[in-house]
Amino acid sequence: MRYQKPKGTADILPGDTEKWRFVEDTARKLFKTYQYREIRTPMFENFEVFSRTSGDTSDIVTKEMYDFKDKGDRHISLRPEGTAGVVRAFVENKLYGPEYNKPYKVYYMGPMYRYERPQSGRLREFHQIGVEAFGSDSPVLDVEVISMAINLFKKLGLSDLRLTLNSLGDKTSRDNYRAALIEYLEPHFEELSEESKVRLHKNPLRVLDSKEEQDQQFVADAPSILDYLTDDAKAHFEQVKQQLDLLGIDYVVDSTMVRGLDYYNHTIFEVMTQSKSLGHGYTTICAGGRYNGLVEELGGPEVSGVGFGLGIERLLLLLQDEQVSMPNDDDLDVFVVGIGEAANAMTLKVVQAIRAKGFSSDRDYLDRKPKGQFKIADRLNAKYTLTIGESELESKTAHLKKMASGEEITVTLEEVQQDFQSIIESKFSNKK
Amino acid sequence: MRYQKPKGTADILPGDTEKWRFVEDTARKLFKTYQYREIRTPMFENFEVFSRTSGDTSDIVTKEMYDFKDKGDRHISLRPEGTAGVVRAFVENKLYGPEYNKPYKVYYMGPMYRYERPQSGRLREFHQIGVEAFGSDSPVLDVEVISMAINLFKKLGLSDLRLTLNSLGDKTSRDNYRAALIEYLEPHFEELSEESKVRLHKNPLRVLDSKEEQDQQFVADAPSILDYLTDDAKAHFEQVKQQLDLLGIDYVVDSTMVRGLDYYNHTIFEVMTQSKSLGHGYTTICAGGRYNGLVEELGGPEVSGVGFGLGIERLLLLLQDEQVSMPNDDDLDVFVVGIGEAANAMTLKVVQAIRAKGFSSDRDYLDRKPKGQFKIADRLNAKYTLTIGESELESKTAHLKKMASGEEITVTLEEVQQDFQSIIESKFSNKK
Repeated sequence: MRYQKPKGTADILPGDTEKWRFVEDTARKLFKTYQYREIRTPMFENFEVFSRTSGDTSDIVTKEMYDFKDKGDRHISLRPEGTAGVVRAFVENKLYGPEYNKPYKVYYMGPMYRYERPQSGRLREFHQIGVEAFGSDSPVLDVEVISMAINLFKKLGLSDLRLTLNSLGDKTSRDNYRAALIEYLEPHFEELSEESKVRLHKNPLRVLDSKEEQDQQFVADAPSILDYLTDDAKAHFEQVKQQLDLLGIDYVVDSTMVRGLDYYNHTIFEVMTQSKSLGHGYTTICAGGRYNGLVEELGGPEVSGVGFGLGIERLLLLLQDEQVSMPNDDDLDVFVVGIGEAANAMTLKVVQAIRAKGFSSDRDYLDRKPKGQFKIADRLNAKYTLTIGESELESKTAHLKKMASGEEITVTLEEVQQDFQSIIESKFSNKK
Repeated sequence: MRYQKPKGTADILPGDTEKWRFVEDTARKLFKTYQYREIRTPMFENFEVFSRTSGDTSDIVTKEMYDFKDKGDRHISLRPEGTAGVVRAFVENKLYGPEYNKPYKVYYMGPMYRYERPQSGRLREFHQIGVEAFGSDSPVLDVEVISMAINLFKKLGLSDLRLTLNSLGDKTSRDNYRAALIEYLEPHFEELSEESKVRLHKNPLRVLDSKEEQDQQFVADAPSILDYLTDDAKAHFEQVKQQLDLLGIDYVVDSTMVRGLDYYNHTIFEVMTQSKSLGHGYTTICAGGRYNGLVEELGGPEVSGVGFGLGIERLLLLLQDEQVSMPNDDDLDVFVVGIGEAANAMTLKVVQAIRAKGFSSDRDYLDRKPKGQFKIADRLNAKYTLTIGESELESKTAHLKKMASGEEITVTLEEVQQDFQSIIESKFSNKK
C-alpha cells in the first residue's frame, strides 16, 4: 500500500528548506532591527478564540476551520491565522502589565490551517509570517509596521511593490458608515448574492469584500468610508499619510478596500505586486491593519494593536518567478576517502575531528571501492578530498587534495585532526 | 470572558524564544557539518501512517493520538512523533532514487502531539529535534548518528552524559528472542499486568518496557536479546562498539533496554543524564536506533534507516538547571528621542535610516515627554541615545550619547542616517 500526504499539505524537502530558512532568517534579522521579538503560540486554540475574533459569519469560521473534539471533549481548532492566538497569549500572560515595554512588539512564523479548495500557492496547511504591536494608538506605529512589511519584501529582492491604504475609522465612523451602506444596499436586496443577503444586516462591509460578480456591481457606487470618518479618525489617517510621505513610501488610497476579518479599524493596508506566478495584474502579498478592540474582545484591557501577516508559500513562488538568488546549503568542505579495511575504520575518527572544528565533512557508508568514493566526493562538490590508504596509515599521514586546483599535499593525520583551518590556509600554494 | 490556551499547550514568549532559537541554531550548525539537511513534513498525516509505523498496540496509537475526521471525512492525526512522516515523505517523493546521494541524511524540528496527562516537561504539544539517515546498513552510520546526538548535547554545554546501548538484532534474532521471551513469561501469565497479558503474544518485548511494578519483577531474570543475535547481527553490534571505542565515546550495554516503538532493529540507544529538573537518577534525554523495515512498511523499497529524536522542552529545563548561559536578544543599539512636535515627526525617518544599516533602533510611540523617553531608553538598555530637539532640527544636527561612558557628541542628521557605523567607530574617544 502507498501512503500519501493529506490533501492540501506539502512536504518541504532539502533543496527547498534552505529557501524557507533564507526568507525566515531575513525576516528575523529585519524584525530585530525594529525590536520585534519572537512569540510562539500553540498550533491549535479553543474554537471560541477564533469564532470570537474572526467573526461568526466569516468564511474562515463557517467553512474553513480544521476543528475537532479532543479526547477530553474540548472543541479545538487548528489555527486559521496567527493574530488571534497571539492576542489570546497577550491577554492570558498579562503582557500588558507595567513590567513590559510599550508598545509590546512581537513577530511569529509558522503553519496555519484552512480547509479550502487546494490550488496553486494556496494550501490547506500554509505558512505565515506576521507581526503585532500592542499598546500604542500612535499613527507613527502604523507606519512603522507598514514600512517593515515593505522593507522585508525589498530586502528579499522584490521591487515592483504597490501599497494600498484605507481607513475604517473608529467605532463611531464605522457605525455611521454601516448605516449608510445598509441604506444604499437595501433597495438592491434581491439582486445580491445569497451570502450577501445574509450579511447585509449582520456585517454589510463584507458585501464590499464579496467575490461574487452580482455583488461587485454595487461596489463602485457605494458610499465611501472616508466620508464617514470622525475628526479623530480623519486626523489619524492624515498623520499616517504624512509619515509615509516623509519616509518616501508611495501609496494609493482605495476606499473600497475592507479586510475579510471583522476586527480591523483605522488604518488597513495591503502590499501588492504583479507576477505571472500569482495570476494577472496586482495581487496582494501582505495585509494588515489596526485592531484596537481585539484585546478587549478576548477578555483583556483596552489595549490597541496593529500588525500584518504574509503567506510564505506565495512569497516563495514570487521570489522564484523574479529569479531572486537564494542559498542552497549543499556545499561540502572535506570528503575523506578510506582505502582498505584498516584505513576505512579510521576515517570516521578523522571526519569527526574535522567536523568538530566547524567544517562539513563526510565519508562513504556503502562499502564503496576507492573509485566509487572519489566519484561521490565529486558529486557532493567536495572542496577537498583527504585520502587515507594502508601505507599512509602506517606512516600516519594522508593526502589532501584541493579540488579547484588539483593541487595535492601530504599531511599528518595528527595535524589534519588538530587544525584543519591552518592547513588549508598555509600549506597550499596561492593559485586557485 | 477569559480565554485560555488549550490544556497541555504552552505559549513561548519573548525572552524564551531566544533560548529555543539558540538550541535550534546550535543543532542546525552541527547537523550541517555532518551533511544532514532539513526536511519539513505536515503537522498531520493520514491516521494509518502512524498506526502502521508505531504499532497498533502502542500507547501512542491506542490512547494518545490527536486524531479526527476532516471536513472531507478523512481520518487525520496530528503527528505524535517525527519519524513516520519523514519516512512517508521519503517514500512518496522517491528520495531513494538514483539521483539522490546515499545515505540520504535529513533532520527535522517542530511540534508533536500526544494526548498524555500533562506534567512538568511533558506537554501535549511538545517539540522534538530528530535526524534520519536512509540507505546504508553500515554500523559506522549508527555511530555517526550516536556521536552527533552526543556532540549536540556537549555543544550545548552539557557534560554528565551516559550512553546506553543495545541491539535488537535482525528479524531472525527477534523471532527467536520473541519465542524465548514468551516461553519465559507464560508461566507467570496470571501475575502480569492486564496490559502485559494482552501484549504477551502480540509483542512480548513491550512487557520488558512496561512501567507497571508487577511486570518489572520479571525483567531482571528474563532471557537476554544479546544471546539470540544471529552472527550477522552480532558482527554489526561488535562493529558499532569498536567504532565507539575508536572515537573514545563511553557506553554501557543494557540488554533489557527495548524501545516503545515497534519499528526498531539492530542498534538502539539512549542518551541519559542526571538532573534535578528531570527527576531522580539518570533519565533519558535522547533516543534512537535502526529501523530497517520501516521504509518497506510504508510502501517503499528495501531501504534501511537509522535516526534519533530528542525533546526540546526537557532539554531546555536541563540547560536552565545546569545554568548554561543562553543569549537574550533584548539589546538595543540606538533609541531616538524627539523633543517637540516637529522633531518628533522626524524621528521615525532617522530610526528607519539607522535600521536600514542593520542596527536595532527604536523611538517613542506613546507621546512621552523627553524625560519619559530617556527613561525608556534606559530601560531598553540602549547603547546610544540620539536626541533631536527644535533647535537641532533647525541646524540639522542631533546629540548622540554613548550610554556606557556618558560621552556626548554632536552629529549632523545627514551623517547619522548615512553612516552610523563610522560615527560610533571614529567619533567617540576610546575610553569605554
